[in-house]
Amino acid sequence: MQLVSEHLCFGGAQRRYKHRSACLDCEMHLSVFHPPANGRKEGPAGRGGKGGKTPVLYYLSGLTCTDENFVAKAGAQRYAAEHGIALIAPDTSPRGDHVPDDPDGAWDFGKGAGFYVNATEVPWAANYRMYDYIAEELPPLVNQHLGLDAANAAITGHSMGGHGALTIALSNPERYRSVSAFSPIVAPSSVPWGQNALGRYLGEDKDAWARHDACELIRSGAKQLPMLVDQGLADEFLDKQLQTKRLEEACQAAGYPATIRYQDGYDHSYFFVGSFIGEHIAFHAQALGCG
Amino acid sequence: MQLVSEHLCFGGAQRRYKHRSACLDCEMHLSVFHPPANGRKEGPAGRGGKGGKTPVLYYLSGLTCTDENFVAKAGAQRYAAEHGIALIAPDTSPRGDHVPDDPDGAWDFGKGAGFYVNATEVPWAANYRMYDYIAEELPPLVNQHLGLDAANAAITGHSMGGHGALTIALSNPERYRSVSAFSPIVAPSSVPWGQNALGRYLGEDKDAWARHDACELIRSGAKQLPMLVDQGLADEFLDKQLQTKRLEEACQAAGYPATIRYQDGYDHSYFFVGSFIGEHIAFHAQALGCG
Repeated sequence: MQLVSEHLCFGGAQRRYKHRSACLDCEMHLSVFHPPANGRKEGPAGRGGKGGKTPVLYYLSGLTCTDENFVAKAGAQRYAAEHGIALIAPDTSPRGDHVPDDPDGAWDFGKGAGFYVNATEVPWAANYRMYDYIAEELPPLVNQHLGLDAANAAITGHSMGGHGALTIALSNPERYRSVSAFSPIVAPSSVPWGQNALGRYLGEDKDAWARHDACELIRSGAKQLPMLVDQGLADEFLDKQLQTKRLEEACQAAGYPATIRYQDGYDHSYFFVGSFIGEHIAFHAQALGCG
Repeated sequence: MQLVSEHLCFGGAQRRYKHRSACLDCEMHLSVFHPPANGRKEGPAGRGGKGGKTPVLYYLSGLTCTDENFVAKAGAQRYAAEHGIALIAPDTSPRGDHVPDDPDGAWDFGKGAGFYVNATEVPWAANYRMYDYIAEELPPLVNQHLGLDAANAAITGHSMGGHGALTIALSNPERYRSVSAFSPIVAPSSVPWGQNALGRYLGEDKDAWARHDACELIRSGAKQLPMLVDQGLADEFLDKQLQTKRLEEACQAAGYPATIRYQDGYDHSYFFVGSFIGEHIAFHAQALGCG
Protein backbone atom coordinates (compact mmCIF):
# COMPACT_ATOMS: atom_id res chain seq x y z
CA MET A 1 0.00 0.00 0.00
CA GLN A 2 1.82 3.05 -1.29
CA LEU A 3 0.43 6.46 -0.35
CA VAL A 4 -0.14 8.54 -3.50
CA SER A 5 -1.85 11.63 -2.13
CA GLU A 6 -3.37 12.97 1.06
CA HIS A 7 -5.73 15.85 1.91
CA LEU A 8 -7.07 16.86 5.28
CA CYS A 9 -10.88 16.91 5.07
CA PHE A 10 -13.40 17.48 7.87
CA GLY A 11 -10.59 16.82 10.32
CA GLY A 12 -9.85 13.40 8.80
CA ALA A 13 -7.50 12.29 6.06
CA GLN A 14 -8.60 11.65 2.49
CA ARG A 15 -5.91 9.37 1.12
CA ARG A 16 -5.23 7.67 -2.19
CA TYR A 17 -3.19 4.48 -2.22
CA LYS A 18 -1.64 2.36 -4.96
CA HIS A 19 -1.16 -1.35 -4.49
CA ARG A 20 -0.56 -4.54 -6.41
CA SER A 21 -3.68 -6.69 -6.53
CA ALA A 22 -2.92 -10.40 -6.59
CA CYS A 23 -6.37 -11.48 -7.75
CA LEU A 24 -6.67 -8.84 -10.48
CA ASP A 25 -3.02 -9.21 -11.52
CA CYS A 26 -2.50 -5.45 -11.88
CA GLU A 27 -1.80 -2.24 -9.98
CA MET A 28 -4.90 -0.70 -8.40
CA HIS A 29 -5.73 2.62 -6.82
CA LEU A 30 -7.82 2.74 -3.67
CA SER A 31 -9.23 5.89 -2.02
CA VAL A 32 -9.75 5.89 1.72
CA PHE A 33 -11.15 8.46 4.10
CA HIS A 34 -9.81 8.04 7.62
CA PRO A 35 -12.08 9.86 10.07
CA PRO A 36 -10.57 12.09 12.76
CA ALA A 37 -9.74 10.49 16.08
CA ASN A 38 -11.39 13.24 18.11
CA GLY A 39 -13.78 15.65 16.46
CA ARG A 40 -11.92 17.85 13.99
CA LYS A 41 -8.45 16.85 15.07
CA GLU A 42 -6.69 14.26 12.97
CA GLY A 43 -5.30 11.19 14.67
CA PRO A 44 -2.72 8.69 13.44
CA ALA A 45 -3.63 6.69 10.34
CA GLY A 46 -6.52 4.38 10.87
CA ARG A 47 -7.01 5.17 14.52
CA GLY A 48 -10.06 7.38 14.10
CA GLY A 49 -13.46 6.50 15.48
CA LYS A 50 -14.65 6.40 19.04
CA GLY A 51 -12.14 4.15 20.82
CA GLY A 52 -10.66 1.00 19.32
CA LYS A 53 -10.31 0.30 15.61
CA THR A 54 -12.32 2.22 13.07
CA PRO A 55 -15.26 0.53 11.30
CA VAL A 56 -15.40 0.72 7.52
CA LEU A 57 -17.98 1.43 4.85
CA TYR A 58 -17.13 0.26 1.34
CA TYR A 59 -18.54 2.35 -1.49
CA LEU A 60 -18.64 0.65 -4.90
CA SER A 61 -18.87 3.05 -7.85
CA GLY A 62 -20.82 2.82 -11.08
CA LEU A 63 -20.01 2.50 -14.77
CA THR A 64 -17.09 4.65 -16.05
CA CYS A 65 -16.02 5.69 -12.55
CA THR A 66 -12.69 5.26 -10.81
CA ASP A 67 -11.97 5.36 -7.08
CA GLU A 68 -12.02 9.17 -7.24
CA ASN A 69 -15.55 10.17 -8.31
CA PHE A 70 -17.22 9.41 -4.99
CA VAL A 71 -14.41 11.07 -3.07
CA ALA A 72 -14.73 14.35 -4.97
CA LYS A 73 -18.47 14.54 -5.56
CA ALA A 74 -20.56 12.95 -2.81
CA GLY A 75 -19.63 15.10 0.20
CA ALA A 76 -19.62 11.92 2.29
CA GLN A 77 -16.60 12.79 4.42
CA ARG A 78 -18.63 15.09 6.64
CA TYR A 79 -20.93 12.28 7.76
CA ALA A 80 -18.14 9.71 8.03
CA ALA A 81 -16.20 12.13 10.24
CA GLU A 82 -19.23 12.65 12.47
CA HIS A 83 -19.77 8.91 12.95
CA GLY A 84 -16.12 7.86 13.02
CA ILE A 85 -16.39 5.56 10.01
CA ALA A 86 -13.70 5.02 7.36
CA LEU A 87 -14.81 5.15 3.71
CA ILE A 88 -13.18 2.72 1.28
CA ALA A 89 -13.68 3.55 -2.40
CA PRO A 90 -12.18 0.97 -4.80
CA ASP A 91 -11.84 1.34 -8.55
CA THR A 92 -14.47 -0.29 -10.80
CA SER A 93 -12.29 -2.67 -12.82
CA PRO A 94 -8.74 -3.93 -13.26
CA ARG A 95 -6.46 -1.38 -14.93
CA GLY A 96 -3.27 -1.29 -16.97
CA ASP A 97 -2.07 -1.70 -20.54
CA HIS A 98 -1.91 -5.48 -20.21
CA VAL A 99 -5.56 -5.72 -19.11
CA PRO A 100 -7.93 -6.45 -22.01
CA ASP A 101 -10.65 -3.91 -22.73
CA ASP A 102 -13.74 -3.85 -24.89
CA PRO A 103 -12.44 -3.78 -28.49
CA ASP A 104 -14.90 -1.02 -29.41
CA GLY A 105 -14.16 1.02 -26.29
CA ALA A 106 -17.68 0.54 -24.90
CA TRP A 107 -18.25 2.40 -21.64
CA ASP A 108 -20.50 -0.31 -20.17
CA PHE A 109 -18.08 -3.25 -20.49
CA GLY A 110 -14.38 -3.82 -19.78
CA LYS A 111 -12.36 -1.11 -18.06
CA GLY A 112 -14.51 0.98 -15.76
CA ALA A 113 -17.19 -1.72 -15.91
CA GLY A 114 -16.03 -4.81 -14.03
CA PHE A 115 -19.55 -5.52 -12.72
CA TYR A 116 -18.14 -7.03 -9.50
CA VAL A 117 -18.01 -10.60 -10.84
CA ASN A 118 -15.23 -13.15 -11.33
CA ALA A 119 -15.06 -13.55 -15.10
CA THR A 120 -14.78 -17.09 -16.45
CA GLU A 121 -14.61 -16.32 -20.16
CA VAL A 122 -11.50 -15.65 -22.27
CA PRO A 123 -9.87 -13.09 -22.32
CA TRP A 124 -11.54 -11.55 -19.26
CA ALA A 125 -10.93 -14.32 -16.73
CA ALA A 126 -7.27 -13.42 -16.16
CA ASN A 127 -7.96 -9.99 -14.62
CA TYR A 128 -11.67 -9.32 -14.23
CA ARG A 129 -12.16 -10.68 -10.73
CA MET A 130 -13.68 -7.69 -8.97
CA TYR A 131 -15.88 -9.94 -6.82
CA ASP A 132 -12.87 -11.56 -5.21
CA TYR A 133 -11.05 -8.24 -5.03
CA ILE A 134 -13.82 -6.62 -2.97
CA ALA A 135 -14.96 -9.61 -0.92
CA GLU A 136 -11.67 -11.45 -0.37
CA GLU A 137 -8.58 -9.39 -1.13
CA LEU A 138 -9.49 -6.00 0.33
CA PRO A 139 -10.63 -6.96 3.87
CA PRO A 140 -7.24 -8.28 5.05
CA LEU A 141 -5.47 -5.36 3.35
CA VAL A 142 -7.82 -2.95 5.12
CA ASN A 143 -7.05 -4.64 8.42
CA GLN A 144 -3.32 -5.05 8.14
CA HIS A 145 -2.16 -2.13 6.01
CA LEU A 146 -4.72 0.51 6.86
CA GLY A 147 -5.25 -0.44 10.50
CA LEU A 148 -9.03 -0.41 10.11
CA ASP A 149 -11.55 -2.90 11.46
CA ALA A 150 -12.60 -4.99 8.45
CA ALA A 151 -14.55 -7.24 10.83
CA ASN A 152 -16.90 -4.31 11.47
CA ALA A 153 -17.87 -3.39 7.93
CA ALA A 154 -20.80 -2.31 5.82
CA ILE A 155 -21.15 -1.82 2.06
CA THR A 156 -22.95 0.53 -0.31
CA GLY A 157 -22.70 1.60 -3.92
CA HIS A 158 -24.24 3.42 -6.86
CA SER A 159 -25.78 1.93 -10.02
CA MET A 160 -23.43 -0.90 -11.14
CA GLY A 161 -21.84 -0.39 -7.72
CA GLY A 162 -25.24 -0.73 -6.07
CA HIS A 163 -25.52 -4.08 -7.82
CA GLY A 164 -22.05 -4.95 -6.53
CA ALA A 165 -22.88 -3.94 -2.96
CA LEU A 166 -26.15 -5.89 -2.89
CA THR A 167 -24.81 -9.07 -4.47
CA ILE A 168 -21.53 -9.16 -2.52
CA ALA A 169 -23.31 -8.48 0.79
CA LEU A 170 -26.04 -11.05 0.15
CA SER A 171 -23.42 -13.66 -0.73
CA ASN A 172 -21.11 -12.82 2.19
CA PRO A 173 -23.39 -11.88 5.08
CA GLU A 174 -20.68 -12.72 7.60
CA ARG A 175 -18.52 -9.90 6.21
CA TYR A 176 -21.00 -7.00 6.32
CA ARG A 177 -23.36 -5.77 9.02
CA SER A 178 -25.57 -3.82 6.62
CA VAL A 179 -25.96 -3.03 2.93
CA SER A 180 -27.39 -0.11 1.01
CA ALA A 181 -27.54 1.10 -2.56
CA PHE A 182 -28.29 4.15 -4.68
CA SER A 183 -30.04 3.51 -8.01
CA PRO A 184 -28.80 -0.10 -8.16
CA ILE A 185 -29.02 -2.53 -11.05
CA VAL A 186 -31.15 -4.99 -9.06
CA ALA A 187 -31.73 -7.66 -11.72
CA PRO A 188 -28.79 -7.74 -14.13
CA SER A 189 -29.98 -11.04 -15.65
CA SER A 190 -33.06 -9.23 -16.93
CA VAL A 191 -31.77 -5.86 -18.21
CA PRO A 192 -29.50 -4.87 -21.14
CA TRP A 193 -26.46 -3.61 -19.16
CA GLY A 194 -26.43 -6.77 -17.06
CA GLN A 195 -27.20 -9.22 -19.85
CA ASN A 196 -24.35 -7.84 -21.92
CA ALA A 197 -21.85 -7.86 -19.05
CA LEU A 198 -22.82 -11.19 -17.47
CA GLY A 199 -22.99 -12.86 -20.87
CA ARG A 200 -19.51 -11.76 -21.85
CA TYR A 201 -17.83 -12.18 -18.43
CA LEU A 202 -19.60 -15.42 -17.42
CA GLY A 203 -20.79 -17.03 -20.64
CA GLU A 204 -24.12 -18.73 -21.09
CA ASP A 205 -24.39 -20.41 -17.67
CA LYS A 206 -27.53 -18.84 -16.20
CA ASP A 207 -26.84 -20.34 -12.79
CA ALA A 208 -23.65 -18.26 -12.72
CA TRP A 209 -25.66 -15.18 -13.64
CA ALA A 210 -28.10 -15.87 -10.81
CA ARG A 211 -25.25 -15.82 -8.28
CA HIS A 212 -24.65 -12.18 -9.32
CA ASP A 213 -28.27 -11.05 -9.39
CA ALA A 214 -29.61 -9.42 -6.21
CA CYS A 215 -33.20 -10.41 -6.93
CA GLU A 216 -32.23 -14.03 -7.55
CA LEU A 217 -30.13 -14.16 -4.38
CA ILE A 218 -33.01 -12.80 -2.32
CA ARG A 219 -35.50 -15.24 -3.86
CA SER A 220 -33.21 -18.15 -3.11
CA GLY A 221 -33.15 -17.32 0.59
CA ALA A 222 -30.08 -15.16 1.20
CA LYS A 223 -29.55 -14.16 4.83
CA GLN A 224 -31.41 -10.92 5.53
CA LEU A 225 -28.97 -8.16 6.38
CA PRO A 226 -30.35 -4.68 7.13
CA MET A 227 -30.91 -3.20 3.67
CA LEU A 228 -31.67 0.37 2.49
CA VAL A 229 -32.18 1.28 -1.18
CA ASP A 230 -32.86 4.75 -2.62
CA GLN A 231 -34.05 5.22 -6.18
CA GLY A 232 -34.76 8.54 -7.90
CA LEU A 233 -38.00 8.71 -9.86
CA ALA A 234 -36.49 11.04 -12.49
CA ASP A 235 -33.63 8.57 -13.08
CA GLU A 236 -33.14 8.25 -16.83
CA PHE A 237 -32.16 4.57 -16.42
CA LEU A 238 -34.99 3.50 -14.13
CA ASP A 239 -37.34 1.86 -16.61
CA LYS A 240 -34.86 0.05 -18.81
CA GLN A 241 -31.80 -0.78 -16.69
CA LEU A 242 -32.72 -0.52 -13.03
CA GLN A 243 -36.32 -1.72 -12.67
CA THR A 244 -36.37 -1.32 -8.89
CA LYS A 245 -39.85 -2.85 -8.81
CA ARG A 246 -38.20 -6.25 -9.32
CA LEU A 247 -36.34 -5.81 -6.02
CA GLU A 248 -39.56 -4.94 -4.24
CA GLU A 249 -41.19 -8.07 -5.63
CA ALA A 250 -38.27 -10.31 -4.69
CA CYS A 251 -38.19 -8.93 -1.14
CA GLN A 252 -41.93 -9.39 -0.82
CA ALA A 253 -41.73 -12.98 -2.08
CA ALA A 254 -38.90 -13.80 0.34
CA GLY A 255 -40.29 -11.87 3.30
CA TYR A 256 -37.18 -9.65 3.33
CA PRO A 257 -37.91 -6.46 5.31
CA ALA A 258 -35.76 -4.18 3.15
CA THR A 259 -36.34 -0.43 3.07
CA ILE A 260 -36.79 0.57 -0.58
CA ARG A 261 -37.49 4.25 -1.10
CA TYR A 262 -38.42 6.21 -4.21
CA GLN A 263 -37.30 9.83 -4.25
CA ASP A 264 -39.44 12.14 -6.33
CA GLY A 265 -37.59 14.26 -8.89
CA TYR A 266 -34.08 12.87 -8.36
CA ASP A 267 -31.99 11.61 -11.29
CA HIS A 268 -29.04 9.20 -11.61
CA SER A 269 -26.29 11.75 -10.85
CA TYR A 270 -24.05 12.40 -7.88
CA PHE A 271 -26.43 15.23 -6.94
CA PHE A 272 -28.75 12.38 -5.93
CA VAL A 273 -26.07 10.38 -4.11
CA GLY A 274 -24.89 13.50 -2.30
CA SER A 275 -28.42 14.37 -1.19
CA PHE A 276 -28.91 11.02 0.58
CA ILE A 277 -25.43 9.73 1.46
CA GLY A 278 -25.82 11.25 4.92
CA GLU A 279 -28.87 9.12 5.60
CA HIS A 280 -27.12 6.02 4.28
CA ILE A 281 -24.08 6.59 6.48
CA ALA A 282 -26.36 7.11 9.49
CA PHE A 283 -28.12 3.83 8.60
CA HIS A 284 -24.82 1.94 8.45
CA ALA A 285 -23.56 3.66 11.61
CA GLN A 286 -26.42 2.04 13.52
CA ALA A 287 -25.40 -1.42 12.31
CA LEU A 288 -21.70 -0.68 12.97
CA GLY A 289 -22.37 0.41 16.54
CA CYS A 290 -21.38 4.04 16.04
CA GLY A 291 -24.77 5.62 15.38
CA MET B 1 -31.00 32.94 -19.62
CA GLN B 2 -31.28 29.55 -21.28
CA LEU B 3 -31.53 26.50 -19.03
CA VAL B 4 -28.84 23.96 -20.00
CA SER B 5 -29.23 21.32 -17.30
CA GLU B 6 -31.02 20.71 -14.04
CA HIS B 7 -30.60 18.25 -11.16
CA LEU B 8 -32.61 17.97 -7.99
CA CYS B 9 -30.22 18.23 -5.02
CA PHE B 10 -31.06 18.39 -1.30
CA GLY B 11 -34.60 19.22 -2.30
CA GLY B 12 -33.51 22.23 -4.34
CA ALA B 13 -32.58 22.62 -8.00
CA GLN B 14 -29.00 22.74 -9.24
CA ARG B 15 -29.27 24.48 -12.59
CA ARG B 16 -26.83 25.51 -15.31
CA TYR B 17 -27.73 28.45 -17.53
CA LYS B 18 -26.24 29.90 -20.70
CA HIS B 19 -26.57 33.59 -21.47
CA ARG B 20 -25.08 36.31 -23.60
CA SER B 21 -22.96 38.69 -21.53
CA ALA B 22 -23.00 42.25 -22.83
CA CYS B 23 -19.96 43.41 -20.91
CA LEU B 24 -17.83 40.35 -21.73
CA ASP B 25 -19.10 40.21 -25.34
CA CYS B 26 -19.45 36.42 -25.29
CA GLU B 27 -21.69 33.55 -24.21
CA MET B 28 -21.28 32.60 -20.56
CA HIS B 29 -22.37 29.69 -18.39
CA LEU B 30 -23.70 30.30 -14.91
CA SER B 31 -24.48 27.64 -12.30
CA VAL B 32 -27.19 28.35 -9.76
CA PHE B 33 -28.52 26.36 -6.82
CA HIS B 34 -32.10 27.28 -6.00
CA PRO B 35 -32.90 26.12 -2.46
CA PRO B 36 -36.15 24.26 -1.76
CA ALA B 37 -39.16 26.33 -0.83
CA ASN B 38 -40.04 24.15 2.14
CA GLY B 39 -37.51 21.73 3.56
CA ARG B 40 -36.85 18.95 1.07
CA LYS B 41 -39.68 19.79 -1.29
CA GLU B 42 -38.79 21.78 -4.36
CA GLY B 43 -40.70 24.98 -5.03
CA PRO B 44 -41.01 26.97 -8.24
CA ALA B 45 -37.81 28.51 -9.60
CA GLY B 46 -36.36 31.18 -7.40
CA ARG B 47 -39.07 31.08 -4.79
CA GLY B 48 -37.13 29.12 -2.17
CA GLY B 49 -36.16 30.57 1.18
CA LYS B 50 -38.31 31.44 4.12
CA GLY B 51 -41.00 33.71 2.72
CA GLY B 52 -40.38 36.34 0.06
CA LYS B 53 -37.56 36.32 -2.44
CA THR B 54 -34.50 34.17 -1.92
CA PRO B 55 -31.21 35.78 -0.84
CA VAL B 56 -28.10 34.93 -2.83
CA LEU B 57 -24.50 34.01 -2.14
CA TYR B 58 -22.06 34.46 -5.02
CA TYR B 59 -19.14 32.05 -5.12
CA LEU B 60 -16.18 33.12 -7.27
CA SER B 61 -13.89 30.28 -8.32
CA GLY B 62 -10.14 30.09 -8.61
CA LEU B 63 -7.60 29.70 -11.42
CA THR B 64 -8.46 27.10 -14.12
CA CYS B 65 -12.01 26.60 -12.81
CA THR B 66 -15.32 27.02 -14.60
CA ASP B 67 -18.75 27.52 -13.05
CA GLU B 68 -18.94 23.76 -12.43
CA ASN B 69 -16.11 22.91 -10.02
CA PHE B 70 -17.72 24.39 -6.93
CA VAL B 71 -21.08 22.85 -7.81
CA ALA B 72 -19.65 19.33 -8.06
CA LYS B 73 -17.01 19.38 -5.35
CA ALA B 74 -17.86 21.60 -2.39
CA GLY B 75 -21.01 19.94 -1.05
CA ALA B 76 -22.41 23.42 -0.43
CA GLN B 77 -25.99 22.67 -1.50
CA ARG B 78 -26.79 20.98 1.79
CA TYR B 79 -26.10 24.14 3.79
CA ALA B 80 -27.71 26.47 1.25
CA ALA B 81 -30.85 24.29 1.36
CA GLU B 82 -30.89 24.44 5.15
CA HIS B 83 -30.65 28.24 5.21
CA GLY B 84 -32.76 28.95 2.12
CA ILE B 85 -29.95 30.72 0.23
CA ALA B 86 -29.35 30.53 -3.54
CA LEU B 87 -25.77 29.88 -4.68
CA ILE B 88 -24.55 31.68 -7.81
CA ALA B 89 -21.36 30.28 -9.34
CA PRO B 90 -20.07 32.26 -12.36
CA ASP B 91 -17.28 31.19 -14.69
CA THR B 92 -13.78 32.62 -14.13
CA SER B 93 -13.22 34.42 -17.45
CA PRO B 94 -14.83 35.25 -20.76
CA ARG B 95 -15.06 32.24 -23.12
CA GLY B 96 -15.28 31.49 -26.81
CA ASP B 97 -13.07 31.18 -29.87
CA HIS B 98 -13.09 34.93 -30.48
CA VAL B 99 -11.82 35.67 -26.95
CA PRO B 100 -8.03 36.10 -26.83
CA ASP B 101 -6.08 33.74 -24.60
CA ASP B 102 -2.53 33.58 -23.32
CA PRO B 103 -0.40 32.75 -26.39
CA ASP B 104 1.53 30.11 -24.46
CA GLY B 105 -1.60 28.58 -22.91
CA ALA B 106 -0.62 29.62 -19.38
CA TRP B 107 -3.09 28.43 -16.73
CA ASP B 108 -2.70 31.56 -14.59
CA PHE B 109 -3.59 34.16 -17.22
CA GLY B 110 -6.29 34.50 -19.89
CA LYS B 111 -9.09 31.97 -20.08
CA GLY B 112 -9.87 30.51 -16.68
CA ALA B 113 -7.95 33.37 -15.07
CA GLY B 114 -9.86 36.64 -15.49
CA PHE B 115 -8.79 37.89 -12.04
CA TYR B 116 -12.08 39.80 -11.61
CA VAL B 117 -10.74 43.05 -13.11
CA ASN B 118 -11.74 45.21 -16.07
CA ALA B 119 -8.76 44.93 -18.41
CA THR B 120 -7.52 48.12 -20.03
CA GLU B 121 -4.69 46.70 -22.14
CA VAL B 122 -4.88 45.41 -25.73
CA PRO B 123 -6.03 42.74 -26.61
CA TRP B 124 -7.66 41.91 -23.26
CA ALA B 125 -9.80 45.00 -22.80
CA ALA B 126 -12.48 43.90 -25.27
CA ASN B 127 -13.62 40.88 -23.24
CA TYR B 128 -11.83 40.63 -19.92
CA ARG B 129 -14.25 42.64 -17.78
CA MET B 130 -15.04 40.14 -15.03
CA TYR B 131 -15.28 42.91 -12.44
CA ASP B 132 -18.21 44.52 -14.24
CA TYR B 133 -19.71 41.13 -15.01
CA ILE B 134 -19.89 40.15 -11.33
CA ALA B 135 -20.61 43.54 -9.78
CA GLU B 136 -22.83 45.15 -12.44
CA GLU B 137 -24.20 42.70 -15.00
CA LEU B 138 -25.14 39.73 -12.83
CA PRO B 139 -27.25 41.39 -10.09
CA PRO B 140 -30.06 42.59 -12.38
CA LEU B 141 -29.99 39.25 -14.26
CA VAL B 142 -30.25 37.43 -10.94
CA ASN B 143 -33.21 39.60 -10.00
CA GLN B 144 -35.13 39.61 -13.24
CA HIS B 145 -34.36 36.28 -14.87
CA LEU B 146 -33.79 34.06 -11.86
CA GLY B 147 -36.32 35.68 -9.53
CA LEU B 148 -33.81 35.91 -6.69
CA ASP B 149 -33.19 38.82 -4.33
CA ALA B 150 -29.97 40.44 -5.56
CA ALA B 151 -30.54 43.24 -3.05
CA ASN B 152 -29.93 40.71 -0.27
CA ALA B 153 -26.61 39.25 -1.33
CA ALA B 154 -23.27 38.09 0.03
CA ILE B 155 -20.10 37.00 -1.73
CA THR B 156 -17.35 34.44 -1.21
CA GLY B 157 -14.67 32.73 -3.27
CA HIS B 158 -11.57 30.56 -3.38
CA SER B 159 -7.98 31.60 -4.20
CA MET B 160 -8.21 33.96 -7.21
CA GLY B 161 -11.95 33.94 -6.47
CA GLY B 162 -11.25 34.86 -2.87
CA HIS B 163 -9.37 37.86 -4.21
CA GLY B 164 -12.37 38.63 -6.42
CA ALA B 165 -14.85 38.34 -3.56
CA LEU B 166 -12.82 40.55 -1.23
CA THR B 167 -12.04 43.28 -3.76
CA ILE B 168 -15.52 43.41 -5.32
CA ALA B 169 -17.21 43.48 -1.90
CA LEU B 170 -14.86 46.12 -0.49
CA SER B 171 -15.44 48.30 -3.58
CA ASN B 172 -19.23 47.78 -3.63
CA PRO B 173 -20.29 47.56 0.00
CA GLU B 174 -23.83 48.60 -0.90
CA ARG B 175 -24.24 45.40 -2.95
CA TYR B 176 -23.15 42.80 -0.35
CA ARG B 177 -24.06 42.27 3.29
CA SER B 178 -20.99 40.15 4.05
CA VAL B 179 -17.87 38.76 2.42
CA SER B 180 -15.75 35.68 3.00
CA ALA B 181 -12.89 33.88 1.31
CA PHE B 182 -11.01 30.59 1.25
CA SER B 183 -7.26 30.79 0.66
CA PRO B 184 -7.54 34.20 -1.07
CA ILE B 185 -4.86 36.10 -2.95
CA VAL B 186 -5.00 39.05 -0.53
CA ALA B 187 -2.28 41.24 -2.03
CA PRO B 188 -2.04 40.64 -5.79
CA SER B 189 0.18 43.71 -6.26
CA SER B 190 2.85 41.98 -4.20
CA VAL B 191 2.82 38.34 -5.36
CA PRO B 192 3.76 36.66 -8.67
CA TRP B 193 0.28 35.50 -9.78
CA GLY B 194 -1.15 38.95 -9.17
CA GLN B 195 1.77 40.94 -10.57
CA ASN B 196 1.65 38.96 -13.80
CA ALA B 197 -2.13 39.26 -14.19
CA LEU B 198 -2.53 42.89 -13.10
CA GLY B 199 0.46 43.95 -15.18
CA ARG B 200 -0.90 42.37 -18.34
CA TYR B 201 -4.58 43.25 -17.84
CA LEU B 202 -4.07 46.75 -16.39
CA GLY B 203 -0.64 47.88 -17.55
CA GLU B 204 1.84 49.78 -15.42
CA ASP B 205 -0.61 52.04 -13.57
CA LYS B 206 -0.10 51.03 -9.95
CA ASP B 207 -3.12 53.02 -8.83
CA ALA B 208 -5.24 50.74 -10.98
CA TRP B 209 -3.58 47.73 -9.34
CA ALA B 210 -4.40 49.12 -5.91
CA ARG B 211 -8.09 49.26 -6.76
CA HIS B 212 -7.94 45.45 -7.18
CA ASP B 213 -5.85 44.66 -4.11
CA ALA B 214 -7.79 43.75 -0.96
CA CYS B 215 -5.02 44.90 1.37
CA GLU B 216 -4.76 48.27 -0.39
CA LEU B 217 -8.53 48.75 -0.32
CA ILE B 218 -8.62 48.05 3.41
CA ARG B 219 -5.70 50.39 4.11
CA SER B 220 -7.39 53.17 2.17
CA GLY B 221 -10.47 52.97 4.36
CA ALA B 222 -12.97 50.71 2.61
CA LYS B 223 -16.28 50.33 4.43
CA GLN B 224 -16.05 47.43 6.88
CA LEU B 225 -18.44 44.66 5.89
CA PRO B 226 -18.55 41.53 8.04
CA MET B 227 -15.56 39.48 6.78
CA LEU B 228 -14.49 35.87 7.37
CA VAL B 229 -11.32 34.37 5.86
CA ASP B 230 -10.07 30.78 6.20
CA GLN B 231 -6.55 29.80 5.22
CA GLY B 232 -5.03 26.32 5.41
CA LEU B 233 -1.58 26.08 6.93
CA ALA B 234 -0.56 23.20 4.64
CA ASP B 235 -1.53 25.26 1.57
CA GLU B 236 1.23 24.89 -1.00
CA PHE B 237 0.66 28.48 -2.21
CA LEU B 238 0.56 30.19 1.19
CA ASP B 239 4.09 31.55 1.40
CA LYS B 240 4.58 32.72 -2.18
CA GLN B 241 1.15 33.63 -3.59
CA LEU B 242 -1.28 34.11 -0.73
CA GLN B 243 0.63 35.68 2.16
CA THR B 244 -2.41 35.96 4.41
CA LYS B 245 -0.30 37.76 6.98
CA ARG B 246 -0.54 40.87 4.78
CA LEU B 247 -4.33 40.86 5.23
CA GLU B 248 -3.96 40.60 8.99
CA GLU B 249 -1.61 43.57 8.96
CA ALA B 250 -3.87 45.67 6.73
CA CYS B 251 -6.90 44.92 8.93
CA GLN B 252 -4.92 45.78 12.05
CA ALA B 253 -3.70 49.06 10.54
CA ALA B 254 -7.23 50.02 9.49
CA GLY B 255 -8.97 48.77 12.62
CA TYR B 256 -11.02 46.32 10.52
CA PRO B 257 -12.48 43.61 12.80
CA ALA B 258 -12.23 40.81 10.23
CA THR B 259 -12.15 37.17 11.32
CA ILE B 260 -9.03 35.60 9.78
CA ARG B 261 -8.54 31.95 10.71
CA TYR B 262 -5.66 29.57 10.04
CA GLN B 263 -6.62 25.91 9.74
CA ASP B 264 -3.89 23.48 10.70
CA GLY B 265 -3.11 20.79 8.15
CA TYR B 266 -5.45 21.92 5.36
CA ASP B 267 -4.21 22.46 1.79
CA HIS B 268 -5.46 24.49 -1.19
CA SER B 269 -7.92 21.89 -2.52
CA TYR B 270 -11.69 21.57 -2.53
CA PHE B 271 -11.29 19.18 0.40
CA PHE B 272 -10.49 22.36 2.36
CA VAL B 273 -13.35 24.40 0.87
CA GLY B 274 -15.78 21.54 1.49
CA SER B 275 -14.69 21.21 5.11
CA PHE B 276 -15.52 24.84 5.93
CA ILE B 277 -18.15 25.95 3.39
CA GLY B 278 -20.86 25.09 5.93
CA GLU B 279 -19.42 27.57 8.41
CA HIS B 280 -19.10 30.23 5.70
CA ILE B 281 -22.70 29.78 4.60
CA ALA B 282 -23.84 30.00 8.23
CA PHE B 283 -21.80 33.22 8.58
CA HIS B 284 -23.44 34.74 5.50
CA ALA B 285 -26.88 33.50 6.58
CA GLN B 286 -26.60 35.69 9.67
CA ALA B 287 -25.91 38.77 7.57
CA LEU B 288 -28.67 37.84 5.10
CA GLY B 289 -31.25 37.44 7.83
CA CYS B 290 -31.76 33.70 7.38
CA GLY B 291 -29.39 32.36 10.01
